[in-house]
Amino acid sequence: MVARLASLDDLAPGQSFELGTLSLSLAEIVAFASRYDAQPFHLDEAAAATSLFRTLVASGLHTLSAVFGHVIASGLISEISLGGNQMDVKWPAALRPDEEVAVRVEVLDVRPSASRPALGVARLRYLATRIADGVVVLDATGTHFLKR
Amino acid sequence: MVARLASLDDLAPGQSFELGTLSLSLAEIVAFASRYDAQPFHLDEAAAATSLFRTLVASGLHTLSAVFGHVIASGLISEISLGGNQMDVKWPAALRPDEEVAVRVEVLDVRPSASRPALGVARLRYLATRIADGVVVLDATGTHFLKR
Repeated sequence: MVARLASLDDLAPGQSFELGTLSLSLAEIVAFASRYDAQPFHLDEAAAATSLFRTLVASGLHTLSAVFGHVIASGLISEISLGGNQMDVKWPAALRPDEEVAVRVEVLDVRPSASRPALGVARLRYLATRIADGVVVLDATGTHFLKR
Repeated sequence: MVARLASLDDLAPGQSFELGTLSLSLAEIVAFASRYDAQPFHLDEAAAATSLFRTLVASGLHTLSAVFGHVIASGLISEISLGGNQMDVKWPAALRPDEEVAVRVEVLDVRPSASRPALGVARLRYLATRIADGVVVLDATGTHFLKR
C-alpha cells in the first residue's frame, strides 16, 4: 500500500516511491489519439508499420496522462496537492499496447514558501519503465504546489 | 483555411500560424480528469471553491492534450509529422469550462538531420490565449521530427 503524504514536510530530496505498474490497451490508445493526437501511427497498425515507430504506439500525451493519473490515483499526494504550473517531459521510447510499465516518483527538491507558510513548492520526477526490458518510456519533472 | 506544410523546408524560425479557437465543456473536463487527473479541483465545484484555483478548472494535461489535438486536427503538420520526443510545458493560468482560447503555433528553430536527409528536427511552440482577457493558459514547446 502506498503512503499518503500529509505535508510538504514529509518530502525530502532523494526520496522515491514505487507505485506499481500500468499498461494501455489498443482500444484506449486509439480512443485517446482520436480525440487528442490523431496521427496515423497512433491510430492504424498498417500506417504505423511504415512510420519511424514501425508499430502502433500510444500518443506521448497519453503515456504522460496515464502515468500522472496513476500517481494521482495512488493517493500519494492526494492530501497535499494544490496544483502545478510547469512540466518538462521526455519520451525516450514509445509505449506499445499492453506493455507493462513500472511507475516511480522521485523527489528532486522541496522549497517551503517564504510568503505563504501553509504551502511550498516541490519538483517531482515521474518515471515509467518498461518491465520487459528496462527501457524508460516517460521521464517527466513537474513543479507542484503542496500543502504544509 | 490552414496551410498544410509539405516539408520541413517550409518552416523557418519566426513563422507563426493562427489555428482558430477551442473550449472545453464541464463534462469533458470532468471526464478527462476522472481518468487522468482525479483531483477535487478538476471534478467538483464545491471542492474547487476552497482550492487555490477558487473554481473548477481543467487538468493542465487536458489543456495540453486539447490544444495539441487541435493543432493536429488542423492539418498543419499532418503531411510531415513523424513524432516527437520532448516537450516543455508551462501553464501560466488555468482553463475554466467553456472559456474560449485562441491557438497559435510558432516556429522556434529548424534543423535538417545531418545523417538522415529525409528528415529534420524542429522546435514548435504551442500557445493558447484566453480570448476574454488575453491571458495565456498554455505555453508549450515540443521537439518534433519532421519529413523533408
